Amino acid sequence: MIARPDELPGATAAASLQLLKQHSPLIHCLTNDVVQTLTANVLLALGASPAMVIEPSEATQFSRLADGVLINIGTLTAARAESMLAAVEAANQAATPWVLDPVAVGGLTFRTEFANRLLTLQPAAIRGNASEIMALSGLQASGRGVDSTADSLAALPAAQQLAQRSGAIVAVTGATDYITDGQRSWAVGGGDPLMTRVVGTGCALSAVVAAFCSLPGERLDHVAAACRVMAHCGAAASKQAGGPGSFTPAFLDALYRWQGDE
Amino acid sequence: MIARPDELPGATAAASLQLLKQHSPLIHCLTNDVVQTLTANVLLALGASPAMVIEPSEATQFSRLADGVLINIGTLTAARAESMLAAVEAANQAATPWVLDPVAVGGLTFRTEFANRLLTLQPAAIRGNASEIMALSGLQASGRGVDSTADSLAALPAAQQLAQRSGAIVAVTGATDYITDGQRSWAVGGGDPLMTRVVGTGCALSAVVAAFCSLPGERLDHVAAACRVMAHCGAAASKQAGGPGSFTPAFLDALYRWQGDE
Amino acid sequence: MIARPDELPGATAAASLQLLKQHSPLIHCLTNDVVQTLTANVLLALGASPAMVIEPSEATQFSRLADGVLINIGTLTAARAESMLAAVEAANQAATPWVLDPVAVGGLTFRTEFANRLLTLQPAAIRGNASEIMALSGLQASGRGVDSTADSLAALPAAQQLAQRSGAIVAVTGATDYITDGQRSWAVGGGDPLMTRVVGTGCALSAVVAAFCSLPGERLDHVAAACRVMAHCGAAASKQAGGPGSFTPAFLDALYRWQGDE
Repeated sequence: MIARPDELPGATAAASLQLLKQHSPLIHCLTNDVVQTLTANVLLALGASPAMVIEPSEATQFSRLADGVLINIGTLTAARAESMLAAVEAANQAATPWVLDPVAVGGLTFRTEFANRLLTLQPAAIRGNASEIMALSGLQASGRGVDSTADSLAALPAAQQLAQRSGAIVAVTGATDYITDGQRSWAVGGGDPLMTRVVGTGCALSAVVAAFCSLPGERLDHVAAACRVMAHCGAAASKQAGGPGSFTPAFLDALYRWQGDE
Repeated sequence: MIARPDELPGATAAASLQLLKQHSPLIHCLTNDVVQTLTANVLLALGASPAMVIEPSEATQFSRLADGVLINIGTLTAARAESMLAAVEAANQAATPWVLDPVAVGGLTFRTEFANRLLTLQPAAIRGNASEIMALSGLQASGRGVDSTADSLAALPAAQQLAQRSGAIVAVTGATDYITDGQRSWAVGGGDPLMTRVVGTGCALSAVVAAFCSLPGERLDHVAAACRVMAHCGAAASKQAGGPGSFTPAFLDALYRWQGDE
Repeated sequence: MIARPDELPGATAAASLQLLKQHSPLIHCLTNDVVQTLTANVLLALGASPAMVIEPSEATQFSRLADGVLINIGTLTAARAESMLAAVEAANQAATPWVLDPVAVGGLTFRTEFANRLLTLQPAAIRGNASEIMALSGLQASGRGVDSTADSLAALPAAQQLAQRSGAIVAVTGATDYITDGQRSWAVGGGDPLMTRVVGTGCALSAVVAAFCSLPGERLDHVAAACRVMAHCGAAASKQAGGPGSFTPAFLDALYRWQGDE
């Protein structure tokens, strides 16, 4: 049996959130076609600034100006992969943190090879569900799509191994989220099953992780704080909502208004 | 004068909806850039799983895993057409049903030629407005864009002819929807004009048709049930909504909550 | 100090809005990936018809059918630039007005060169924030992304110069909007800071400008009316909303219902 890590203290999450609002980071998002609007609106609601710039020459220029970069391979194409590599290389030269969201990795060859290549380019953080993190770590996974079929706690050893190998903070998210640097780990509870009936909540979390990675201080705590903010506001919105349609406006309002107090 | 087919019985629609919730099909959507989020959220609200995978090699792999495939040519490009053909061929090899939404066919040359090529590849169903169905059948149409300028009942003979030629169930949608296999036909009333002021309700219906086509049993009834579910929930949402903005959250909530009872 | 132009009279804006509802123009939008849904829904709420058609051969065909064309370079790629040029050339041949939204111009080389090329192709109107309008006019700007860092009134001289050089109506938008043909100018107040926390409100305004440019009559007044309609409905929605999430449904409802009376 895998030992459950301690829950991230609320005060730690609140401190990271305050820092985010002070810094208002600019996040360069190379993400999939389905979730671009929600991703941008989540960042804006939190006080960060999103920008999507995709032509390779511009992605190179822009990654140097940004405070953080998100790479999400949900609707990867060969052309977009080129832009992503350009952005990652420029980010690394400028010491800008970048985050990998390995959507549906494991089952599909092109993205799996690409994600493995990205792994060697020093991501600051990786955010995925249990199936994705297990697939990326090289362990067996059974994902047939974007939904996680494995429990997030069962994937914690894979996450720890992946963190050690890549040097990234790894967040494996599900009913409970686990965040690890390979040595120390946090648990983040909360959230609500309704969030799985709205497209892009996980992808938007990865953008928020990129925003929190741009902050000074302890990155493990910041990434866990990103998970905590999304879980808290998601649970609050679910309580108010009559279904997945009214969830989204309530979720964005909660992200805009929440100051980190319980 | 064209005889109006019988209205689909509510109990038939309810039975199909229950079956959908049991099966929770995975639908591979190759759709246009404008409606991806709504399409995914409609499928999720109904308990199905959407996935958008577009690189040709991955589209081939993914169509074999999916329970149904949607091809929507709204923002067709030469590159996307290649992915679509790859997905359709793989779907046919795996006996996975695929659905064609021939957006704005007739007025524009590239997509019209492409849609005619797709017609020869055994779609399980075709969903379009009157102008699109008439154009695809080879009859005269006067569409200048995505809106239907013809009445759906007037297009029923074209739909029947198209169904016979292609082997597909054809749904011609409008104020009333007509669904035909070339011999038998159903009418589905309901809906609300407000739905025409929200982008993507028709495109999302085509994705729902793909989900219902994946179910065992009588496909003509299932496709009509897809139309019925969307019309019923659209009418319910319109009654609640103060305009097209509040329509969308109410519509997704209704799709999530409705069990098929009247 | 720059003299503040007169405020556009409410009756002028109302007259333009009535004309828009009568004409229901078809607007061909070549816009960025992040804002397509909101752009389409804003046009639909106002009674106009949006269409996104992007393959170069189809963009050429479609620009001739449309009543107005929008070119927004937010997620420009080399392929999309080709489609945009094809659409602009066809629009010019058909005397269809087209509008330029020069997103993030100035800081990024590829789009800046492309926007300067478009400037020579007779846009009917240009809509941008202060940084973008200053950058496009050749004056210094300090934009690091899509947000304006300069005050819109400070950019009015640049807007006037740009209008004279290009022949376009230029709208520089911010807390107050300024609209100029190079000689005469209008101010449009209103709006709400909450609108800057929702992605795409500025991009959607540019599509609305394209719709108003298609109307017969005084184009300067029509473009200012477009700004007025969006500012009025944005302020009304902000008053109702609990944050940026509930803003969007309220905004679309307001655009759908407002008749131009105060």
